[in-house]
Amino acid sequence: MTTLAAAPARSHPAVDEAIGLAREASTLGSTASILGWDQETMMPPGGLEHRARQLAQLARLAHGMSTDPRLGDALARAAEAVQALPETHPDRVNVRELRRDHDKATKLPARLVEELASTASVAQHEWAEARKASDFARFRPWLEKIVRLNREKADCFGWDRAGGERWDALADSFEPGCTARYVEGVFVPLRARLQPMLDAITAAKRRPDGSFNDHAMDIDGQERFARFVSGALGFDFARGRLDRSTHPFCGGSHCNDVRMTSRYSERCLLDGLGSTMHETGHGMYEQGLDPAWIGTPMGEAVSLSIHESQSRLWENQVGRSLPFCRWARSQMPEHFGGAADRFTAEQVYEAANVVEPGFIRVDADEATYNMHVMVRFELERAMISRDLDVKDLPGEWNRLYKDYLGLTVPDDRRGCLQDVHWSGGMIGYFPTYTLGTLYAAQFFETAREAIPGLDEGFAKGEFRQLLGWLNGGIHRHGRRWLSADLCVQVTGKPLSADPFIRHLEAKLGPMYGI
Amino acid sequence: MTTLAAAPARSHPAVDEAIGLAREASTLGSTASILGWDQETMMPPGGLEHRARQLAQLARLAHGMSTDPRLGDALARAAEAVQALPETHPDRVNVRELRRDHDKATKLPARLVEELASTASVAQHEWAEARKASDFARFRPWLEKIVRLNREKADCFGWDRAGGERWDALADSFEPGCTARYVEGVFVPLRARLQPMLDAITAAKRRPDGSFNDHAMDIDGQERFARFVSGALGFDFARGRLDRSTHPFCGGSHCNDVRMTSRYSERCLLDGLGSTMHETGHGMYEQGLDPAWIGTPMGEAVSLSIHESQSRLWENQVGRSLPFCRWARSQMPEHFGGAADRFTAEQVYEAANVVEPGFIRVDADEATYNMHVMVRFELERAMISRDLDVKDLPGEWNRLYKDYLGLTVPDDRRGCLQDVHWSGGMIGYFPTYTLGTLYAAQFFETAREAIPGLDEGFAKGEFRQLLGWLNGGIHRHGRRWLSADLCVQVTGKPLSADPFIRHLEAKLGPMYGI
Repeated sequence: MTTLAAAPARSHPAVDEAIGLAREASTLGSTASILGWDQETMMPPGGLEHRARQLAQLARLAHGMSTDPRLGDALARAAEAVQALPETHPDRVNVRELRRDHDKATKLPARLVEELASTASVAQHEWAEARKASDFARFRPWLEKIVRLNREKADCFGWDRAGGERWDALADSFEPGCTARYVEGVFVPLRARLQPMLDAITAAKRRPDGSFNDHAMDIDGQERFARFVSGALGFDFARGRLDRSTHPFCGGSHCNDVRMTSRYSERCLLDGLGSTMHETGHGMYEQGLDPAWIGTPMGEAVSLSIHESQSRLWENQVGRSLPFCRWARSQMPEHFGGAADRFTAEQVYEAANVVEPGFIRVDADEATYNMHVMVRFELERAMISRDLDVKDLPGEWNRLYKDYLGLTVPDDRRGCLQDVHWSGGMIGYFPTYTLGTLYAAQFFETAREAIPGLDEGFAKGEFRQLLGWLNGGIHRHGRRWLSADLCVQVTGKPLSADPFIRHLEAKLGPMYGI
Repeated sequence: MTTLAAAPARSHPAVDEAIGLAREASTLGSTASILGWDQETMMPPGGLEHRARQLAQLARLAHGMSTDPRLGDALARAAEAVQALPETHPDRVNVRELRRDHDKATKLPARLVEELASTASVAQHEWAEARKASDFARFRPWLEKIVRLNREKADCFGWDRAGGERWDALADSFEPGCTARYVEGVFVPLRARLQPMLDAITAAKRRPDGSFNDHAMDIDGQERFARFVSGALGFDFARGRLDRSTHPFCGGSHCNDVRMTSRYSERCLLDGLGSTMHETGHGMYEQGLDPAWIGTPMGEAVSLSIHESQSRLWENQVGRSLPFCRWARSQMPEHFGGAADRFTAEQVYEAANVVEPGFIRVDADEATYNMHVMVRFELERAMISRDLDVKDLPGEWNRLYKDYLGLTVPDDRRGCLQDVHWSGGMIGYFPTYTLGTLYAAQFFETAREAIPGLDEGFAKGEFRQLLGWLNGGIHRHGRRWLSADLCVQVTGKPLSADPFIRHLEAKLGPMYGI
């Protein structure tokens, strides 16, 4: 496999010039990304203060490059040069997407960018303290400021004042083309189908055997096992790493240097394994991008939802399937000796699929996870539109948790203070988790039709056909299409919740006898 | 201990402005340094090609910042502002040294900087291949180009055409103020005293017991032991790391984030331990710099020779002493069980001090090491002055090895192709190794007078008094003095080879019965 391919020959000097200028900013961004990874994995505590200075400098320099008027001029000339090319030609895609990025970057005044960054920096610290103390009042002024700055940001970007709303302009940074109305159109029917399923599960007499979730196993062995599984799925360790960090993530600098992290809990192998498979999905998407297009939109992921579709697919469609659990169970003796001997593959499978409504999103199972996301979407949408005053957030959060999951939230730590996103200034992000979950199910249904014997292969540890299919259908195209259009290209249909519901029913139906 | 002290209040806005501009370049350099460390320790192989792009970009941006005319203007105003301050006042030191750096940077045309960098990049690759094949002819055109570019570089910097030579201008980048005549004045008498000592050692009947150098010990245990020793000497792991790499080095981003590496050989504990103590000396110098002055000359090491004095002092004056070996031997059971039981502390000490002329500089003992350096100094000086044609280098190298060490060099791999420095474009660097060795001995003699019971303390694992003395006398002063003046400040005398010769005689006399 040639990973260090030269960039393809291009058709016009103006395109080369625009790409050259854009690559400058992107290269600096890739440096910042390595520093970010280092901070979470390797940096000694003493490095923290100076690291903030290093990252702020890189962000400032990269912003200057992204908004450089020379780039705008080159893009204008390049746009003329590519207009006769097919819409999906790499040059035309790059020019279109670079124009989009440049326009977004230039619409934000430097003052606002800096104020958002410095506010988020303090707010994250205040949020962490507030969460520890379960003290919303401490976080409230910061959230108010973040909401205010985000409204201002949305107005800078601009939004459809006839049929749209401010939230749309914010979501667009994470999920190009996404609107609140679109999300609502997906979420409302999804909830309508999930709710009765959850009710039935709550009332069910049969319960899966979750005992493997309380079976302590050696933590270094778990890490070696997770690494082994990641490699078996197809992660290329010659072009990436897997380390430990407090919060798992996938970063790195480009497709040939992908840095994933995971974490392991002594009590439960499946926690760390699931987390590793999730990040492996993200990592293999990054590794599947075309190295010839490093630093350009053709070499970048489409959106957060498509990124999440890849992580969810490997974590859930693959990792929580019976064939995968059979294979994983068969590999345990080599890594753990007899430590898992008393559990069958079926017990591992059942433990991986226990459904239990809870307060914490990141601990949620496949069936309740999306309810957590819907609550957040409702709330952030209302805060941005001013239907909800920040001071009323905790009450409204708790009301919705009762409504969606039948739970009484005991405190704000396990309520509206649990997630980092808002404190980091990110509003419009949450829905991509659920969109990604739905894309994952729809992609996987299509893959299963396209690849005969897919599930049987999992039981034998064969995953490369699936990865190859994702590489060719999704990864290699970079930002050629928007998420919604990519979905049609890959599956022949627009996004629908049906495949996800079918996925849950097929699995949870027998497991809960419903 | 407060490591995150705020920068001291300053006296004049022009000084602040100059320091602010200079810190920009320095911050970018600190980012490059982390990327360099990452490349040697963490980066997967796939990252190599893009990493070169990242580093080239940072170098280009930092060079632009260092040569920014605004910095020159601010320095001119700052120089006026500080002229009434004492010469060693931090502001005056910073302005003086920043002026020095800025002048040096602006004297080199960007074309030459880039040609040197790109030539060195290819030359290092060609050198590595040539070394593998022991084929000087392959490397010769590259070395010729490097010599030519370095002559050009020296002429850009300027040099004393009355009493000096081109080599001086090159050495000045590594060792401010250093000249060939000065080095010759140190090296000639040093050789005159080393030669008879080596002759006596060669003829000696008593030989130290080197058997501990051939005693295999578990390599992970060695790494844990080296880390333990490094911490015991005083390296602060909350402000630094120790990892493995092919070639040990000390890098990192600033005094609160120091990244050392080492390597371990199964066959010989003392290899990896010595290498770790050497890097720990470098690392503790960096950690001892004043955090208030991060990114300014007052927060930077004086020179390569003073840096080397710190590494050599901990490696040789401390690490190869009998009291240290007593302590280290006493700690071995806890780390290796009974694996070292059959060796006494005296045997460890003797093994650490075997003298044996050899072909390879980096494997040399304390007594022969400087001979290797002198040979290189003679040769690079002659190449730069044109007294030696590059094509005649191998013959001249071999002649000098016969002359200095009585050895017949068997091939160029073990001869003039062994070191990376020249291929990396670095001419004028080698003498700092010997200057550092001499400074180490002179500093240590003074420390021993200043700290009662120093050696007895080593035997009990007490090293903090020595570190505190080095911190206060050397580290905290940054670039306040030039190396030679710092030496007078610390020891009351100019640099002399006497302490080093005394150090060797006191140790090797009894050991070889001479």
